[in-house]
Amino acid sequence: MRLLRFIQGDREGVAIDSDGGYRARFAGEAGYPGPLSSLVGMSAGDLARAADDLRAGERIDLAAVTFLPPCGESGKIVCLGLNYRDHAHEFDFEPPAYPTLFARFASSLIGHEQHLIRPRVSDKFDYEGELAVILGRGGRHIAQAAALDHVFGYAAFNDGSIRDYQLLTPQWTVGKNFDGTGAFGPWVVTADELPLGATGLMLETRLNGMVMQRASTSDMIFGVAQTIALLSEAMTLDAGDVIVMGTPSGVGYARKPPVYMKAGDVCEVDIERIGVLRNVVADEA
Amino acid sequence: MRLLRFIQGDREGVAIDSDGGYRARFAGEAGYPGPLSSLVGMSAGDLARAADDLRAGERIDLAAVTFLPPCGESGKIVCLGLNYRDHAHEFDFEPPAYPTLFARFASSLIGHEQHLIRPRVSDKFDYEGELAVILGRGGRHIAQAAALDHVFGYAAFNDGSIRDYQLLTPQWTVGKNFDGTGAFGPWVVTADELPLGATGLMLETRLNGMVMQRASTSDMIFGVAQTIALLSEAMTLDAGDVIVMGTPSGVGYARKPPVYMKAGDVCEVDIERIGVLRNVVADEA
Repeated sequence: MRLLRFIQGDREGVAIDSDGGYRARFAGEAGYPGPLSSLVGMSAGDLARAADDLRAGERIDLAAVTFLPPCGESGKIVCLGLNYRDHAHEFDFEPPAYPTLFARFASSLIGHEQHLIRPRVSDKFDYEGELAVILGRGGRHIAQAAALDHVFGYAAFNDGSIRDYQLLTPQWTVGKNFDGTGAFGPWVVTADELPLGATGLMLETRLNGMVMQRASTSDMIFGVAQTIALLSEAMTLDAGDVIVMGTPSGVGYARKPPVYMKAGDVCEVDIERIGVLRNVVADEA
Repeated sequence: MRLLRFIQGDREGVAIDSDGGYRARFAGEAGYPGPLSSLVGMSAGDLARAADDLRAGERIDLAAVTFLPPCGESGKIVCLGLNYRDHAHEFDFEPPAYPTLFARFASSLIGHEQHLIRPRVSDKFDYEGELAVILGRGGRHIAQAAALDHVFGYAAFNDGSIRDYQLLTPQWTVGKNFDGTGAFGPWVVTADELPLGATGLMLETRLNGMVMQRASTSDMIFGVAQTIALLSEAMTLDAGDVIVMGTPSGVGYARKPPVYMKAGDVCEVDIERIGVLRNVVADEA
């Protein structure tokens, strides 16, 4: 199933794909299962009941809603860097023996069709098309063989980066955390609808229709299961935590001459069998 | 005033210093002002009323409660690295022109007198005594001249680091996010009780009574006001967000031979006019 979080008028809702369209329940209304971030942690039985409740909700028109990031408003957002062999090369780093990890704060996230914001202080705004993993079950010291049982689903992510700030100091954090630079969505596709570990899916990033990145998720150095196992060696993972799996080659920063996003540009992250995350760039007000 | 968050029996409470002791209200009880993380965002009037309510609560014995991290269970925890000139030197980095930032997740935090956890996978567990800033008011593009108006208060922090993991890849994130490695507390001292920007306070880290770090908070490269201003250039800050200001020289990693913490060790971060954050190290179960 596909699940999305949105606002219509002044009401927040959760929607599910149903009969070729989408049906939704709204916060405060009977049958509302809670925000997606709590739904992802439900048992299979509770989730099936919540899905039935959603399918009995009112039909909505996706063209008339404001998409929200599906989850990530609480909990961890852990991102991998340099996780495709070709992209690691682009940044002149050796492919690492351990995943290179950084964090995003929820304040940097936007939903599908929301504006990606080029900040006042920089014109070095770059795209990074990525696969996002949404955890349905947490834990510590999760064995790699069992790790995919902890995945609720997958979404597309644009790990938008302010390159000059990212590379200003040894740590990338600030360049990865400007407001409105991390696009996430449009929806979460549950793991049962995709290949195990979301492998073998073609990921493509397009800027104004031009293909800038194109790779298979099978080209990741650290796959989903291994990443979950390694992360949980260090920290307790929770339902609703998001892991963003890194980007393939083709980012704007590494091009000659570099390509950066400016107001009006349309950036799309298209992942096979997941969907197209589309955002238009705007300058910070 | 001093405010702390704790558990007694199965009840979570918030306490305030009063008449040389502490008085508290418990969740669910009339007069409970909510967790500290919501209290910090109150207007001056509401805060004064909440403090009065707390002072009318029952007397508690700090020796009989379990301290919780005062806040940080939601929102951002932004940490500075290399923010004392002498420590930046210790790591062979040039003092940076912009703060070096990384993130901690709430899952890494513990309160005063809780165990610091040396993980199974590493014996390179190091201490870092630091000043923590708790924001009372958020904002974006906060001017440096107004930035201290956004501070609710200050606490001590032990930014415990798993050094081999920290330095395994270009990003420090994982080495800063092991469960039970970030000690925070014991309480928050409101900004009105301290020098503006918490400058000129002696910060001392002791391991088994031996002084390992000792510096004035005036030796920070980026002060509290400048850090808030710079951070808010990139991201919207919120009430309850925590900024951890970096550590002076004397960490175990840089000693010859290196000194790492092991089970039974007692680590104290003592900040003048704020208090002593004390934790005993235990091995992960």
